[in-house]
Amino acid sequence: MVATREFDAIVLGAGPAGEVAAGRLSEGGLDVAVVERELIGGECSYYACMPSKALLRPGELLGEVRRVGGLVGGAIDPGAALARRDEVIHDLDDGSMLPWLEERGIALYRGAGRLAGERRVQVGDDELLARRAVIVATGTQAALPPLEGLAEAEPWTNREGTTAGEVPASLIVLGGGPVGCELAQAWRTLGADVDLVELADRVLASEEPFASAQVAAGLRERGVRVHTGAEPQRVERRGETAALVLADGEIEAEQILVAAGRRPRTEHLGLETVGLAPGGWIEVDDALRVPGREWLYAIGDVNHRALLTHAGKYQARIAADVILGKDVRATADLDGPPRVTFTDPEVAAVGLTLDAARERGIDARAVDVATSGNAGSSFYGRGAEGTSRLVIDEGRGVIVGATFVGFQTGELLHAATVAITAEVPLERLRHAIAPFPTRNEVWLYLLEEYGL
Amino acid sequence: MVATREFDAIVLGAGPAGEVAAGRLSEGGLDVAVVERELIGGECSYYACMPSKALLRPGELLGEVRRVGGLVGGAIDPGAALARRDEVIHDLDDGSMLPWLEERGIALYRGAGRLAGERRVQVGDDELLARRAVIVATGTQAALPPLEGLAEAEPWTNREGTTAGEVPASLIVLGGGPVGCELAQAWRTLGADVDLVELADRVLASEEPFASAQVAAGLRERGVRVHTGAEPQRVERRGETAALVLADGEIEAEQILVAAGRRPRTEHLGLETVGLAPGGWIEVDDALRVPGREWLYAIGDVNHRALLTHAGKYQARIAADVILGKDVRATADLDGPPRVTFTDPEVAAVGLTLDAARERGIDARAVDVATSGNAGSSFYGRGAEGTSRLVIDEGRGVIVGATFVGFQTGELLHAATVAITAEVPLERLRHAIAPFPTRNEVWLYLLEEYGL
Repeated sequence: MVATREFDAIVLGAGPAGEVAAGRLSEGGLDVAVVERELIGGECSYYACMPSKALLRPGELLGEVRRVGGLVGGAIDPGAALARRDEVIHDLDDGSMLPWLEERGIALYRGAGRLAGERRVQVGDDELLARRAVIVATGTQAALPPLEGLAEAEPWTNREGTTAGEVPASLIVLGGGPVGCELAQAWRTLGADVDLVELADRVLASEEPFASAQVAAGLRERGVRVHTGAEPQRVERRGETAALVLADGEIEAEQILVAAGRRPRTEHLGLETVGLAPGGWIEVDDALRVPGREWLYAIGDVNHRALLTHAGKYQARIAADVILGKDVRATADLDGPPRVTFTDPEVAAVGLTLDAARERGIDARAVDVATSGNAGSSFYGRGAEGTSRLVIDEGRGVIVGATFVGFQTGELLHAATVAITAEVPLERLRHAIAPFPTRNEVWLYLLEEYGL
Repeated sequence: MVATREFDAIVLGAGPAGEVAAGRLSEGGLDVAVVERELIGGECSYYACMPSKALLRPGELLGEVRRVGGLVGGAIDPGAALARRDEVIHDLDDGSMLPWLEERGIALYRGAGRLAGERRVQVGDDELLARRAVIVATGTQAALPPLEGLAEAEPWTNREGTTAGEVPASLIVLGGGPVGCELAQAWRTLGADVDLVELADRVLASEEPFASAQVAAGLRERGVRVHTGAEPQRVERRGETAALVLADGEIEAEQILVAAGRRPRTEHLGLETVGLAPGGWIEVDDALRVPGREWLYAIGDVNHRALLTHAGKYQARIAADVILGKDVRATADLDGPPRVTFTDPEVAAVGLTLDAARERGIDARAVDVATSGNAGSSFYGRGAEGTSRLVIDEGRGVIVGATFVGFQTGELLHAATVAITAEVPLERLRHAIAPFPTRNEVWLYLLEEYGL
């Protein structure tokens, strides 16, 4: 006998986006179920941002110890770093998340959920019915490029690349996006011999060109061999090692890590039962609703608006508010949501790059200063390389893009995000005083460079 | 024979405010002279913010090394810390500042400048005449409280307290404002036995009460004895030590450091030659002009609008622009300019505290969250104590005050400053996405706490 239970809302996937949506709906008074086939907390918590940052932080901090002066000693302890990483990912145990769900009275179904027609979800023998909404928040997984021999070489994806229990002797990282750059730096810092391979002519190809150059320089300084414009031909397993054959040579390493994009987890979701094609990205409008199906929402990576945890959480709030009857739309996750690559130097960016702004026909001007060209940088990130840029819409007198490269610039970004989101006129921004001596005085010099 | 030379503008005092004004006027095409009797760069560069921060940073960084995990070893080297401090203050040599003046064609007069009637300045035998403006930017010096025996005990002020070549065995810090708290922590961290004495019932008495409590706790944790509500009676020199007699006991130490407020450096400025009283603060309007004397400006500490380096630099820009004929006024340096106390935890605040807002009749509501209550704080300032607060004007739906207490919160402040300065509606602020996992997600939780 099949048990059917009704809820106001059913959330498929308990990653960051799904969790936030479930929590907000439940706090709004709705009866909510979440369905999760793996760990509550999702890819980001266990296999991406969180462990990656945990692996990066000791090396970043050691760099700062050496730059600042006044401290002696200090060295990375790879074992301790891995142990700290395990603590951050709760040893891949999601038990600590359960009270959060219980306190909110959110029903948890463990298993693979699939749509079974309008408002219906099947999880094993359980049949769930959604009175108001089903939210798909199943995220993405690593995409394997169609490279001969790659699958057979059993490469690491972000999962193994963030949770490995030992530092590999040598590692080839395939893909020079944020994930590839972060993991190349992390494993190199922990002792691995690392090659980073990118097809484009620069790493972080969607960011400002100076960001790419400065991150590549940081990686090389640490001993990572950065190969851009690479043309991989095939992978060959050779006993204990794997070889990546390039058009102009080959690289051999103990392990290959693939960081070459993501694909949506929508293959086995029963999308066909509601007239959608399985395996693809789920298109939504600014209410995060699937057009023509007012009960069906998709949030997080799976809708392809912005593959960023914070964007998914933002969408979750908007979708929950829409379901709760509020008149609100997602406006800040397309067109350059804030994003940080946690390398050293870090790349923190929001809005449009100069090229992207000009491609859109904006009368854009860039102003650049050295991120460490201020008194505050005598103390933080002293002498660390990096450029900060504002992209200004000359016609409207507002900022449309900002990039900060340098030590821990991730924490400098939010002021730019507020200025862009609120379209604060530059003439008003000059009255936002940055405290001396903090690194935020970079704003003073950027505005001065603009002529304010 | 007296040589008279004419300039467009004469700046008295080459501290941060005077320097910025001179530079901006000169870049605006004016012929500028600056007069300085001590070091080009001023109090802040040599005897305040800069050396204080240099002394604090190693200890702060060591705390972070211990919190983060993944690093072994690391200890403060007091000698190296003092040497790094000396590097930051250029060994009290301002030679490196001269090219900056020369490149801009700014004439430098070394000596004590005094007004000698309208638009006239005397420096030794030189008589300078200002065609457009004289700007007073002579700053402040430590005020000595009228405490019996204090002057005779030859106490340190901020000058000796930031430049001392050796760590004293023991130190009494008189005054629990930002300077007192920072220097108490710095010398304690470098090895001194420290008592901090404050007359008010809490340190940092103009900040939110939780900021006071958390900084006091941080100091006590490091071994500083914090005496609040103290009633000093007199000071007695006893050979190599000095004793501070309180109403309820006494404290003895090798040295006393006075950090009990500032007084304006206006005694020997010739203010009487233009009808102003010497020795007082110089009152100005929002153009930084002395009322009734359209040629006379005062910027920086000396006008008492805000005793903060960055406020002085802001005023310098405004005054220079006014002199250059622009229609601009200072709007952001009164009513809670941004301010940071660089202790651990740091206190970064802008705008009004909750009490101050209510005293002004604002329908104010505070929302509080733990500064480290977000994923980003797993990596920075992990487990460090501290509260973050927004003070919201319920009537207007905007932020009127913000305080962030915690590890390195100084760099978190600027987003709040932009939001307050631009009066960004809270409904719009929710679309300013903070990147995951950075500590700026504190914004997400603050707005959520408010109900957004």
